[in-house]
Amino acid sequence: MTAETRAGAPADPTSAVDRAPGDPAPALAAEQLVQTLLDWDIRYVFICPGSTEAAFLHAAARTPGIDVVLTTHESIAVSMADGMARVTGRPAVAYLHANVGLANGLGHLSAARLALSPVLVLNGLKPAQIQSRGGFTTSTHMRDYVRQDAKWDWQSLRSHDIGFDVARALQVATASPAGPTWVGLSQDLIESPADAWSRDSGRLAVDAAARPSRAALQKALHLLRAAARPIVVAGADVARAGADAVRDVARLAETLRIPVFAEDRRGFERTVLPSRHPHYAGLYDPGRRSVAESDLVLFLGARCFTEFEAPARSSLPPAAAVIHVHADPAEVGKIYGADLGVAADSGAFLADLLEALADLPEAAGGCVPGDGRHLRAAVAEHAEIMSRGPGAPESSEAAPGVAASGATTVAAVMEALSSELDEDTVVVGDATTSGLALLHAVERTAASMHTTSSGSLGWGVGAAMGIKLADPSRRVVAVCGDGSFQFGLQGLWTAVRHGIDVTYLVVNNESYAAVGAAIRRFTGGVTPRERELFVDLAGPSLATVAQGFGAHAVRVRSAGELGKAMRGAAERPGPAVIEIMTDPFDLGP
Amino acid sequence: MTAETRAGAPADPTSAVDRAPGDPAPALAAEQLVQTLLDWDIRYVFICPGSTEAAFLHAAARTPGIDVVLTTHESIAVSMADGMARVTGRPAVAYLHANVGLANGLGHLSAARLALSPVLVLNGLKPAQIQSRGGFTTSTHMRDYVRQDAKWDWQSLRSHDIGFDVARALQVATASPAGPTWVGLSQDLIESPADAWSRDSGRLAVDAAARPSRAALQKALHLLRAAARPIVVAGADVARAGADAVRDVARLAETLRIPVFAEDRRGFERTVLPSRHPHYAGLYDPGRRSVAESDLVLFLGARCFTEFEAPARSSLPPAAAVIHVHADPAEVGKIYGADLGVAADSGAFLADLLEALADLPEAAGGCVPGDGRHLRAAVAEHAEIMSRGPGAPESSEAAPGVAASGATTVAAVMEALSSELDEDTVVVGDATTSGLALLHAVERTAASMHTTSSGSLGWGVGAAMGIKLADPSRRVVAVCGDGSFQFGLQGLWTAVRHGIDVTYLVVNNESYAAVGAAIRRFTGGVTPRERELFVDLAGPSLATVAQGFGAHAVRVRSAGELGKAMRGAAERPGPAVIEIMTDPFDLGP
Repeated sequence: MTAETRAGAPADPTSAVDRAPGDPAPALAAEQLVQTLLDWDIRYVFICPGSTEAAFLHAAARTPGIDVVLTTHESIAVSMADGMARVTGRPAVAYLHANVGLANGLGHLSAARLALSPVLVLNGLKPAQIQSRGGFTTSTHMRDYVRQDAKWDWQSLRSHDIGFDVARALQVATASPAGPTWVGLSQDLIESPADAWSRDSGRLAVDAAARPSRAALQKALHLLRAAARPIVVAGADVARAGADAVRDVARLAETLRIPVFAEDRRGFERTVLPSRHPHYAGLYDPGRRSVAESDLVLFLGARCFTEFEAPARSSLPPAAAVIHVHADPAEVGKIYGADLGVAADSGAFLADLLEALADLPEAAGGCVPGDGRHLRAAVAEHAEIMSRGPGAPESSEAAPGVAASGATTVAAVMEALSSELDEDTVVVGDATTSGLALLHAVERTAASMHTTSSGSLGWGVGAAMGIKLADPSRRVVAVCGDGSFQFGLQGLWTAVRHGIDVTYLVVNNESYAAVGAAIRRFTGGVTPRERELFVDLAGPSLATVAQGFGAHAVRVRSAGELGKAMRGAAERPGPAVIEIMTDPFDLGP
Repeated sequence: MTAETRAGAPADPTSAVDRAPGDPAPALAAEQLVQTLLDWDIRYVFICPGSTEAAFLHAAARTPGIDVVLTTHESIAVSMADGMARVTGRPAVAYLHANVGLANGLGHLSAARLALSPVLVLNGLKPAQIQSRGGFTTSTHMRDYVRQDAKWDWQSLRSHDIGFDVARALQVATASPAGPTWVGLSQDLIESPADAWSRDSGRLAVDAAARPSRAALQKALHLLRAAARPIVVAGADVARAGADAVRDVARLAETLRIPVFAEDRRGFERTVLPSRHPHYAGLYDPGRRSVAESDLVLFLGARCFTEFEAPARSSLPPAAAVIHVHADPAEVGKIYGADLGVAADSGAFLADLLEALADLPEAAGGCVPGDGRHLRAAVAEHAEIMSRGPGAPESSEAAPGVAASGATTVAAVMEALSSELDEDTVVVGDATTSGLALLHAVERTAASMHTTSSGSLGWGVGAAMGIKLADPSRRVVAVCGDGSFQFGLQGLWTAVRHGIDVTYLVVNNESYAAVGAAIRRFTGGVTPRERELFVDLAGPSLATVAQGFGAHAVRVRSAGELGKAMRGAAERPGPAVIEIMTDPFDLGP
């Protein structure tokens, strides 16, 4: 069973801890809290604790079946929970301490929000009495910090309600469209007696996966049948909808002989249709001919779009009809509108659409597949892009894979990485300027990938661990830039302590290359002084830093050394860090 | 000139860059922004940039007199600015990137808020057009993130207004009570032409340092003259008010023969009256006899109080009248009320009070000093506390300074540290369970100290650098716990790159000792499993991590080695990290 087939699977209700009617009820709210998490089959809590969490820690330590994973920075707790929730499709919990701990976790909470990731943030607060007195690590408006990144937020007011409030937060987090929720837990409340409160997660779960209306389906059929060169863009929300939805995208494409694109680079968050599928046509890009010439785009569970800057022209093909399906009504037709906008679960939409296509009466022309010409053109175009190598600026190279400076290029690294990936590898991307080259390496090898479109650097360090814990059978390789990796350094403590098998490949160009690229875009060039002041990150040996944390770590300087280092990392248990030095002036494609 | 004499001094208006009427005006808002900062004599901008800051970076690189200090995590940019603002009493600037960068800086923004520290946060935002389209790294309510930690927040709406808005933010930040402000700067606006806008900082500065009313002064005089055993508690706000205020606290104490206490441990943020002063009586503590027996407490610029938990009994002496003076009206009499509450500048209050005392007519009994008995008792009591050693739990020790485990104790480390400090050293404290022992070491040596009462771990790593840059003539020693230090690791990059001479002493007890102490408080003990899961931080060699960043770093295991290591650190340029291993079971006093 792969991570993808498990995604979206409901929790096995029999795995929740059942209590017989005669069992003694938990005495304290902290115990009630642990029980509620177990009722929801939550097996991990990612925590960076302070004094306010003592009662929870005490209860959790005495309760079999719940693993409280210590982190040394809240950003790691949140990204680990996010990674786990993305892979399992089930809620995951980060427990943060007080106002400052919450603040430290907010950056990656935006990653969870964008991924519709059901991350429950529990937030230990100081006793209620000193909250009203401006006590240590209190804020007057805790909920203001989280409101825009959480679907629902609540601070429990009575110890008796904590079980209910946390269950409610889990319910809301998981109901489609899923997303983070927050519950504030005052120290005095979790340390107080609480009435027993228990309902199993099966009874609380809400099936909110919306089906399209009959009218919407009819219009979709009409638009599809009227199109000569339709394309599908399968976004992250299809993968979130589950393995059946991914299978149904393939079936739809095969039935109608149409190509399937992945979300564009900026919006890309996870692999949907594996790149080995014959209908896979690469990343959506309005500049691609097969996109520009399409006359219908079916955006399925994709954001339209995550804009890095306002585009000079529309990101839609000039003459295409648009169908936009997304679980989150607020995303549908957000920027461009659509001929048909549907707020629905991608899986439900696909199942209904396939059934409607199969049911089409012969008299109405039945379900007529296209002639496959546009499919072949799109796939050939993608193959051509792939054949260019991993997106390298070739002109600047002295020899293949080596820049004029003699240093390795990102292209060469990605080429070497391709040899080490396979379709059972999960890649976690946290690289900025080498992000596109990495995506191409993943496409080339049919590995699957998770990344964030939140821009919250360092996310990959924790997310990779959450993904690995969620599915220990898969190899997890996290590819980070040197700048990004610095943001997630503290995750190495947890990786080492818990022996989590993640290989971190740090592409170290000793630069804030994205900042260099931005100055170049703004001024047409980067002066040596600007480079020295704002772009140059040279200095640290990130391999030495990782060794300081107790991780196996090596620094290599050529793409040729990468394979051996990757295999060495795979052979030993626990985390490994491979720092590969690349040309600081290679700003990527 | 020491840091303390410079604190609160207004900027020299002649040092601002003057432009003659015929000078060409800045063409772009980014240039206008740099000019506005120079007009305010801002010489450093602490930044962790992204693409939205390109125009600012380009303008700053071409402008002499402004030093843009690159950091590799926003928490470092904010804590550096905070440290600098605390020492200079003048505004300091952190420039953060987008929503996720702001989130990363929020924890330490609460430290600046509590310190009434005039930190201006500039926040680069994506172009306005994509803010309304849910673009990359945008949030719908940016100001919600900062509202409760900033005195004033505004997102500039036109390029022409950026100079005005930033000047306004500096004006508000510096007007008493000082505090952080925030200005959102959309990328498209800073890259756009802007009308010239310039007014010198002298004309914009607001003298908001409130004097006490005549009625309040009369009542203060009345209360003081009616008291037999008055005491003064001089809080951080006296030091913020400037060197004259500190001198006047001493004069008041000498005139009336009364003892001066520092703020209690939880509220302590900076040294006011040097501990070498004969009237210095140590930390305010309602459990101390000289406090409990006082019949008047004059809280000057102190918070009453920063509560870690709700106290079992009042934190005020049972029979004392209370005068509470603070620059922030919201702090005055917040928890307990006062017989006289005055929202005023501590310096102004002291000057007026001293004058009123001197002017007392003979007929009214003049200014009669007390008999000094209570002063002598308070000072003797403090000497007795100091003589006990640096707050060590001595009973658990096998030999002086060595725990039963054979490991060094925090007490022994602080004893050894005392030998290396002197009154010219500035200590930055970022240690949790060893915080009180550190305070005692500082009192013992008449060093001065800055710390935060925000609980935002890792603050000291950046703050120490800001303090050093603000006053390069003073030695700066930052004492961090191993947990705290991990939160600020990224600061080492900046310390090394800019060769900032800070000695980081990391007291590594390989524990979240505060969490251990909390579990112990809650349950009466810590089980081996709880220790293993939640308290044990063993593993990293923080010295090796620091070496990875290129810092000079050593790990020592005994207090005896500390002196040599400290002197070695002082002799070499640039940052040094001394990791001293202490007993993991020594949870401190």
